Amino acid sequence: MQIVIAIGGNALLRRGQPMEADVQLQNVAVAAAAVAEVARAHAVALVHGNGPQVGLLALQAEAYAGVRPYPLDVLGAETEGMLGYLIGQELYGLLPGRQIATLLTQVEVDPDDPAFARPTKPIGPIYTREQAERLAAERGHSIAPDGAAFRRVVPSPEPRRILEIETIRLLMRAGVLVICGGGGGIPVAVRAGVVRGVEAVIDKDLAAVLIAREIGADALLLLTDVDAVYEGWGTPAARRIAETTPAELRSRGFASGSMGPKVQAACRFVEESGRVAGIGRLEDAAAILAGRAGTRVVR
Amino acid sequence: MQIVIAIGGNALLRRGQPMEADVQLQNVAVAAAAVAEVARAHAVALVHGNGPQVGLLALQAEAYAGVRPYPLDVLGAETEGMLGYLIGQELYGLLPGRQIATLLTQVEVDPDDPAFARPTKPIGPIYTREQAERLAAERGHSIAPDGAAFRRVVPSPEPRRILEIETIRLLMRAGVLVICGGGGGIPVAVRAGVVRGVEAVIDKDLAAVLIAREIGADALLLLTDVDAVYEGWGTPAARRIAETTPAELRSRGFASGSMGPKVQAACRFVEESGRVAGIGRLEDAAAILAGRAGTRVVR
Repeated sequence: MQIVIAIGGNALLRRGQPMEADVQLQNVAVAAAAVAEVARAHAVALVHGNGPQVGLLALQAEAYAGVRPYPLDVLGAETEGMLGYLIGQELYGLLPGRQIATLLTQVEVDPDDPAFARPTKPIGPIYTREQAERLAAERGHSIAPDGAAFRRVVPSPEPRRILEIETIRLLMRAGVLVICGGGGGIPVAVRAGVVRGVEAVIDKDLAAVLIAREIGADALLLLTDVDAVYEGWGTPAARRIAETTPAELRSRGFASGSMGPKVQAACRFVEESGRVAGIGRLEDAAAILAGRAGTRVVR
Repeated sequence: MQIVIAIGGNALLRRGQPMEADVQLQNVAVAAAAVAEVARAHAVALVHGNGPQVGLLALQAEAYAGVRPYPLDVLGAETEGMLGYLIGQELYGLLPGRQIATLLTQVEVDPDDPAFARPTKPIGPIYTREQAERLAAERGHSIAPDGAAFRRVVPSPEPRRILEIETIRLLMRAGVLVICGGGGGIPVAVRAGVVRGVEAVIDKDLAAVLIAREIGADALLLLTDVDAVYEGWGTPAARRIAETTPAELRSRGFASGSMGPKVQAACRFVEESGRVAGIGRLEDAAAILAGRAGTRVVR
């Protein structure tokens, strides 16, 4: 089968962890083990987030006075390089003889997407309210609460088209494990055949939906640090939903809860493709696919 | 035909130019036009340098106090992302309908390569002697003269093996324009099947030779800002060498002159493969291939 797996930038750098290279390498080892378990039996395209990492690069660029900071699309491309390298390197050791390709991925967005007027995507480290407000005043960043903390937020437009989709199809058919759409892909606008980056960060789950649909993937796994979608989450009667449908998830309000973005992405993929989406914990990737863990969303 | 083209990091950021994103985009437009002219008639793999860019990322990382600077292999991966994106984006507009793939590329080196004890590869901006000596004292960088100026230098070990070579072959056969081996590739050591980055920057011309040999390329173009190899360079009798052999170039001392690295790379490719190498100006890429400009090195 052809499987698209989406893992969060937070799987590579957990909330509050220092953004050091070696910390990320340790986290990457966990993620790579989960992906490799699926990839031993299936063709896999891996999409990863980049929120913490793109924010760090922005901070580093701002800290160096010699050159104006590069725009977010360029920083996004840098994170595709960095994270694709770290993840791919780990996978290489786990999948002897398998070709593993990190493919830079540009994703077309609509330059008139309303998201540009309303930044929502958190990037970079977490701040106290005072720190965040100072950064906002000094640098013109938008900020927003993230749990009890604050983070910088940037626009997150809808992904419309994957410029490299034919190459992804080609690699998947050849059995190459493809790391693509990293950080949701590099957001670009295309006008009269000319491609130019835009200042945004695309949601990597939505980019994964688009990639999965366009390559005709059999399943999409949306992996996070929660083990499933739950009925009665936070109550003593909490019960894992093992299998459900987009209609049921939407009618019962799951699309707007804390798992909202994952649920919405899963519903979108199942509705558009008729195939299966899975939501659950990174470490359970293979078990979710087999129906032994997580939440499966089917037509 | 299958052509491997190597362009310098200096083609993307000329000596002394400010390292701004928009300056690089303008230079990228010139490079992309030259590459596109060749790619309209041939399968192309493009290898680019990253000296100025990897040095800038190192400076930015050092300027931000919150996180320890990432090692050179990770910064190299970031530059593969950034530059592959900028070049690929420009090529996309010039080659409608063509798939263009930037492929992260890891290159195995020997961890015992003598180059690790003797840093030679300049990265980052140019400095005065005083600036360079201060940086060396403060940060432990190695420095060396570069023309009249000074730059940071890092180890540059020999490339031994391209980990993604099968994927490059696959993409070339399918007619995808592949941007690979950026910055000479990310230097890694492989021990007992485990891949780990090493602190170095590989020479992109030598990486291009290895890629060209391994995919069985028909020609290798080594492009720079000098229009050919010259007899009597700098004298009134200077004469472009239109066609020559590795034996002639070596016996007449061209392998140790100012064009030495390019000449050595060309000789190595021709001797190992029996195919053609070309040396010349970026803008002349197609003309060099056709024998109308530059220096052709043949068996």
